[in-house]
This record gives sequence, C-alpha cells and structure tokens, in this order.
Amino acid sequence: MKKKEPGNDPEAMAGIGEDRRMYRGIPAIQISGDHASRVTHEVIEEIPYALFINGRHAMTAMMSPVRLEDFVTGYLFTEQIIKKPEEIESIRIEKNRISVITKNLFKVVGPKKTILSGCGGSTSYIDTEKLPKIRSDLTITAQMIRDRTKEGLESDLHVKTGGIHVVVLADKEGIITCAEDIGRHNAMDRVIGYGLGNGTDFSKTFVICSGRISSEMARKCLTANIPIMISRGATTTLAIDIAKRTGLTVVAFARSMKMMVYTNPERIEDARVP
Amino acid sequence: MKKKEPGNDPEAMAGIGEDRRMYRGIPAIQISGDHASRVTHEVIEEIPYALFINGRHAMTAMMSPVRLEDFVTGYLFTEQIIKKPEEIESIRIEKNRISVITKNLFKVVGPKKTILSGCGGSTSYIDTEKLPKIRSDLTITAQMIRDRTKEGLESDLHVKTGGIHVVVLADKEGIITCAEDIGRHNAMDRVIGYGLGNGTDFSKTFVICSGRISSEMARKCLTANIPIMISRGATTTLAIDIAKRTGLTVVAFARSMKMMVYTNPERIEDARVP
Repeated sequence: MKKKEPGNDPEAMAGIGEDRRMYRGIPAIQISGDHASRVTHEVIEEIPYALFINGRHAMTAMMSPVRLEDFVTGYLFTEQIIKKPEEIESIRIEKNRISVITKNLFKVVGPKKTILSGCGGSTSYIDTEKLPKIRSDLTITAQMIRDRTKEGLESDLHVKTGGIHVVVLADKEGIITCAEDIGRHNAMDRVIGYGLGNGTDFSKTFVICSGRISSEMARKCLTANIPIMISRGATTTLAIDIAKRTGLTVVAFARSMKMMVYTNPERIEDARVP
Repeated sequence: MKKKEPGNDPEAMAGIGEDRRMYRGIPAIQISGDHASRVTHEVIEEIPYALFINGRHAMTAMMSPVRLEDFVTGYLFTEQIIKKPEEIESIRIEKNRISVITKNLFKVVGPKKTILSGCGGSTSYIDTEKLPKIRSDLTITAQMIRDRTKEGLESDLHVKTGGIHVVVLADKEGIITCAEDIGRHNAMDRVIGYGLGNGTDFSKTFVICSGRISSEMARKCLTANIPIMISRGATTTLAIDIAKRTGLTVVAFARSMKMMVYTNPERIEDARVP
C-alpha cells in the first residue's frame, strides 16, 4: 500500500488539478424562452470500472475517473472484504478494469450490502445487532460544521457541472480530505480509503456530504468508526434508526446558520436544549 | 397482472393519499445560530425490500413503501427478466419480502446491469451495440416540458422532506403517472411498471426526473422505448454517449424558461437553431 503524506498529495484536495478529468465540454442546444442557441457545457464524466478481486469480478461501479486507489481501498474496507489496508497486495488499473489482489486470496467475496435478519421468518429487516457500534468521545461545535461545510462543499466543480457529490472528511483541526464523485457512496469510499492509507484515527473525525444520508452511507460510517455524519441534504428514517442503535450522530440540512441534529446530540456541543 | 384504469387509481398520482406512508415525524434538535430547540421534522421513509424471483433472492432494494407492484413490474421489465407484464404469474408482498413468480420459471436471473464488452481484451466499456434503439416519431415543445415539469415536480412531499426523487411519465396530452421514491432508479421503474400495467404506448411518451440522468436511467428508457428523457438536474457524459448512439433525446437543467438539449434535438420543436 503506497502511503501518502497528508498536505503533500496533489490529489488529496478535490477540485485541484483533477477537475479537468472529471468533466468534458459537450455541445448542446440551450433553449431560453423561445430562443435556441448552440452552447458548450461542462458535463460530468461517468465511467464504468469493473472491479476484479483475486481474479473474480466483484462488481462494476459507475464512477468519476480519478483517485481510483482511494476508492478501491475504501470500498474493500467498507464492504468488510479487508480489515486493514495492509491486506491489499496490489491494485492494478488498466483502462476500465481494476484488479486487486489481497493477501488472503481465499477470502469469500460476495455482495452482502444489506444485512437482513429472519430470512423466511416473520421479520426481514436490517439487523442493527450485527452492525458495529461507534467507539468515540469526540465532540464538535456547530461552528466547526459551518466552517468545514463552507470550505469543502462550495466546490467549483459542483457549481460548474451541477451534478457531482462531495464528501468531506474532517477533524477539529480542519479538512483531512475531500472526494468528489458522481456517486455518493463512491465519494464516501474514497475519503475512507484516503484515511486508511494515511493512518487516520477515524474516531476523531466527522464527514460532511452534499447528498442525502441513507442507510448505506450510515453503514459505511459505522464500519470505519466515524462518529458524526453531516449532510447539507436530508436523511432517511432507516439511517436514523441505525444511527440511534449504534451511537452515530446524524446532522442534516446543515446550511449556513441552521442545522438539524437527529441522533446522539451529545456530540454536538451547541445542541444542548435548555 | 391486475389492470388499473388510468385516472381511476387513487395511488396513480404521487402525493395523493400515499404521502403519509412516505415519511414519519421524527424528533430532532434544530440549531439556528447559537440557539437550540426541540422540533419534529418530516423524514422520508427508507425500507429494505428483499425481492425473490421464482424462489431465489434477486436483490434487496432500499425503497419508499408504496406502489410496490408498479416497482416490481417495472424492475423485472427494465432488467429484461420479463418482456411483457403478462409473464408475471403472481406478486406476493409480505412485510419486507416481495415474491414474484414468472410464467417461465427457468429464466436465468442474474445481475447484468452493466453491459461490458471486450472482457480480457483491450476495451472494456458499455457496448452500445447491445442496447436497444429508440423507435419513435414523437416531437414535443419546450412549453410541454415546462408545463409537465411544473405540474409533476413541484411536489409537496419533495418540499416537505427535502429528500425524495420524482419521475413523471407524460405524453402530449398530460401527465400519465408520477412516482416518488428515495431512489431515482426505483422511481423510474415505478412509472414504467405503471405504464406496462396500463398498456401505455411508450413511444409516445417522455419522462421528467428531478434527479440526474445517469447511464442507468438512460438504459431504462431504452428498454421501455421512451424517446425523450428530461431532468431538472444534470446529465453525465456516458448517458450522452449512450443517447447519441441509440436515438434517445436528453434534455437537462429544465428549469422554468431555460433548458439544455444534448442529443437528438429534432424531437424538441423549439430546439431549431437558426
């Protein structure tokens, strides 16, 4: 596993240098009222990557074509195929094919994205007993959330293309890394992959997403032991259920001065209601 | 397959009657500046449904808990597991488990979401030769797009929860059906499922989505032979590539008076550039 020095990696901060690979100028006809004109508009790139793990096709992801190593490391970890980045022996990228060799070649790799319980019985639901619990004593302030959100989410690329998701991994000191991707889950896997490669202590971090917090986004936080998940958008009932039972703090609608804390508010210092 | 009468189905128009099952009031702490207060906020429901096809687990979808039959019909069709709704013998819904029996029990069911070509060779990309081509002589006006967008996308639920996707299936006469779901793909499968169940001629229809047009959304249009796909949001380069080669018209950023036509503009009457 190639180690990266934080602050020294030209690709660590989203939007610097790699922007030009993330979109393409595409000719279009703009209709404005009853007037039509030819324009060129920045359109976000979407590329299919086939991921092979130990020679077997595991999945194909539709992705933004940058920082693929961070994505793969994060994906293998959040899907619980590896426990630490040292288990990756090699990552080879050839065009649209990513081949990973792990040290334990015989590890069973299968889709287990949704943990359902009671198969065939009366209940069939996500079994929160099987999800990891957050272990962290981190507390942060609303002002920290505002500062990191402003710095991380007001991306040029987002404004230019209007269709990219951003995930920010931050701690009390500042932003650790940002990732942009056409998929929310991919962006999340990227920041986790970056943190793993750099020995980040996730229990001291929080993530801010431009998109909605779904159960899948919450699950990825739990696997990495990231105690606080923040979104500029909404959250779902299932993400809240999972967060309540596992100790994850969910903050949604974090926009300028307002935000909503749904679960475990003790980690947000300003969420004390008189 | 139970047939529905258009205009007669209380659940056909999204947001009427079924709204209350799509969200739940959840207690939260709202931080506004340096003031914290207890509030209740509408949070969109996200429920996992395990789909069993002829006794085998095909996938688990995280969904909004309404109009499940439309979703299943549309999903089986857009994934090319069935060719017409009559191939469905029964759909049984028990809590979080949806069981479908098709007439041809031995149809191979597997994930084939991404069609990659040149496995092991030099190219590994979506093979547009294998995608269906659009067969339609439909043309519409920019004003039709504006009217249907205003009517269909300005949903109460969207405004209330801030986190739901809407897909509108319409023709020159008006809106045929709307579907709301926490997932864009689910909402798309729902309107296609509704159209199938009601004998809609898709070659005379167009869809309007609140969310981004990705390759997967374009692919679903092609399978159903829906000639025009419109989004209030952005589109991706891959969706444009696919649309160019298959004859699909892609219109993005359809907001009030402005919109961008990326491919096959001959179907939009106002997109004639002098």
